[in-house]
Amino acid sequence: MSKSATAIAHPNIAFIKYWGNRDDMMRLPANGSISMNLEALYTRTTVTFSTDIPDTVIKINGKSADSSTKFRIDNWLDDLICYLYQKKRLKDAPGNAEIISENSFPTGAGIASSASAFAALTLAVFGALGIETDEADLSCRARHGSGSACRSIPEGFCEWVTGSNEDSYAYSLAPASHWDLVDLIAVISGKHKKVVSSKGHWTADTSPFQEQRVYTAPQRIAVCRQAILEKDFNALAEVSEKDMLMMHSVMMTQDPPLFYWEGPTIRVIKAVREWRKEGLECFATIDAGPNVHVICTGRSAPAVRERMEKISGIREILSSGPGGKAHLV
Amino acid sequence: MSKSATAIAHPNIAFIKYWGNRDDMMRLPANGSISMNLEALYTRTTVTFSTDIPDTVIKINGKSADSSTKFRIDNWLDDLICYLYQKKRLKDAPGNAEIISENSFPTGAGIASSASAFAALTLAVFGALGIETDEADLSCRARHGSGSACRSIPEGFCEWVTGSNEDSYAYSLAPASHWDLVDLIAVISGKHKKVVSSKGHWTADTSPFQEQRVYTAPQRIAVCRQAILEKDFNALAEVSEKDMLMMHSVMMTQDPPLFYWEGPTIRVIKAVREWRKEGLECFATIDAGPNVHVICTGRSAPAVRERMEKISGIREILSSGPGGKAHLV
Repeated sequence: MSKSATAIAHPNIAFIKYWGNRDDMMRLPANGSISMNLEALYTRTTVTFSTDIPDTVIKINGKSADSSTKFRIDNWLDDLICYLYQKKRLKDAPGNAEIISENSFPTGAGIASSASAFAALTLAVFGALGIETDEADLSCRARHGSGSACRSIPEGFCEWVTGSNEDSYAYSLAPASHWDLVDLIAVISGKHKKVVSSKGHWTADTSPFQEQRVYTAPQRIAVCRQAILEKDFNALAEVSEKDMLMMHSVMMTQDPPLFYWEGPTIRVIKAVREWRKEGLECFATIDAGPNVHVICTGRSAPAVRERMEKISGIREILSSGPGGKAHLV
Repeated sequence: MSKSATAIAHPNIAFIKYWGNRDDMMRLPANGSISMNLEALYTRTTVTFSTDIPDTVIKINGKSADSSTKFRIDNWLDDLICYLYQKKRLKDAPGNAEIISENSFPTGAGIASSASAFAALTLAVFGALGIETDEADLSCRARHGSGSACRSIPEGFCEWVTGSNEDSYAYSLAPASHWDLVDLIAVISGKHKKVVSSKGHWTADTSPFQEQRVYTAPQRIAVCRQAILEKDFNALAEVSEKDMLMMHSVMMTQDPPLFYWEGPTIRVIKAVREWRKEGLECFATIDAGPNVHVICTGRSAPAVRERMEKISGIREILSSGPGGKAHLV
């Protein structure tokens, strides 16, 4: 007998960044973070448990997962099943899992998929096992797979609180409909050296600036949260750009240093600041990759996009509004 | 009656950077710094004092200085004359000064000229006035004009100590002949927004990272000094790149943020790190501008230059070995 469920989750872009852990194994973040789900992008994952499956099967975009991805998901799933037994929410062994996952966005575009992947996977596992639970629990379980995945569970604009384990999860600050922001993602062309971000988190403390970044994060969290609630674009722009630059400063001064920026990355950062001075509502933020997320208001988005198209080195521009929560289909 | 002297001084490239002051008026640096003079580049300045000159005349590269430069030099010269009176080293009023200054390097190439300019000017003023003094005094007086100018007074590889005024000057760690390093300066093309670095120094403290950068500077100074004395290229490379990235992290997180990098700047930084891993002795350092100084050993310089020539966005490559002290001609 097999049990199956399919879930969809969106990736998210952080305004206040997650970088570094206070506990690497538990993925307890060094600091709180705030993000927005991206409606136009998603991961769709179907999980089937069956005692007829001899070993976990994982297919991502039609291909078998590589060994390190399989190892990571296997470990996470074992821990989750174990946790559900301990909590007496699972009684019978469900058998092994077949996991079929597809991303709506082009792979290799440098868009982090681990957040939407683990959010969709978590929800699909609970769905397939027929276990009811609340959003905080789902967020917490997703966090164990990939830190920022916890922010792809709730709706719209989300804050992830640090906590000590079960209380470290994300909750929705405001629904997707709250604010018509647009994320124009400048996909930067060129060869990117991939640096797995998990390893970067582990060595964040080797930067002389990480301690100060973490220490001052609660202030930026407070400013960012209020900016979102009050839809104060300039306040959001200033605190988000500052926080992004602080994270990349930490990355570049870690041992070994991590350089995620490419030539066009810095061009877009500088151009966007000039456009904002000229009155366009836009700011730049960058995750652990070369792409620049240019966040704008719906009103400014067409003009910003037009200007972005003139910057050399941008391969394509993806566009997305705020996204909803992870959900079963 | 007129009295005249001509002096030559070289600009310098810092391995441990000067950024921020503990006293802006006195240009007392927040932290100590270490640099190398650049033999191939120089400023040549002739100063003539005469009671027949109605007002200070300043010509730089054949053009009258702009008003803010004139104001800065006038103020500095007044203070210096006043200081010399107080110390009873000057008895008669020397009259006004005519200052004729030429740079050997292309203006607008983004190579800071204030260091070599104030070093040459200081020496020429003392020469024209016929006042003998020691190197520390010259370095200290040059510092009052432009902080990093104090490092262009002594020979070769220089350390500038923080001090409290008269004891804040640069001294030579080693002569130019000590180590056959080569600075290959990648002059980055494109429109540069000029940010006067004095103003950047004044707001360095608004970065959340400046305090930590200053606090840890003595450790980097010690490592850099020893690396120079022992000609340990890898140690020099590691500490210099780290220090440069820390300074630019501070700059980018100041209020307002300062972005000196252009697209090609980040390309060169990343490429140089790869070349070093492949065995070439080279590292990148960047002052308050977009140009990248690629420091290499004489042995590695030809191969490094050949690779640099293939990077897009580099307008030209200037080359220089270690330079001597400021001197009268």
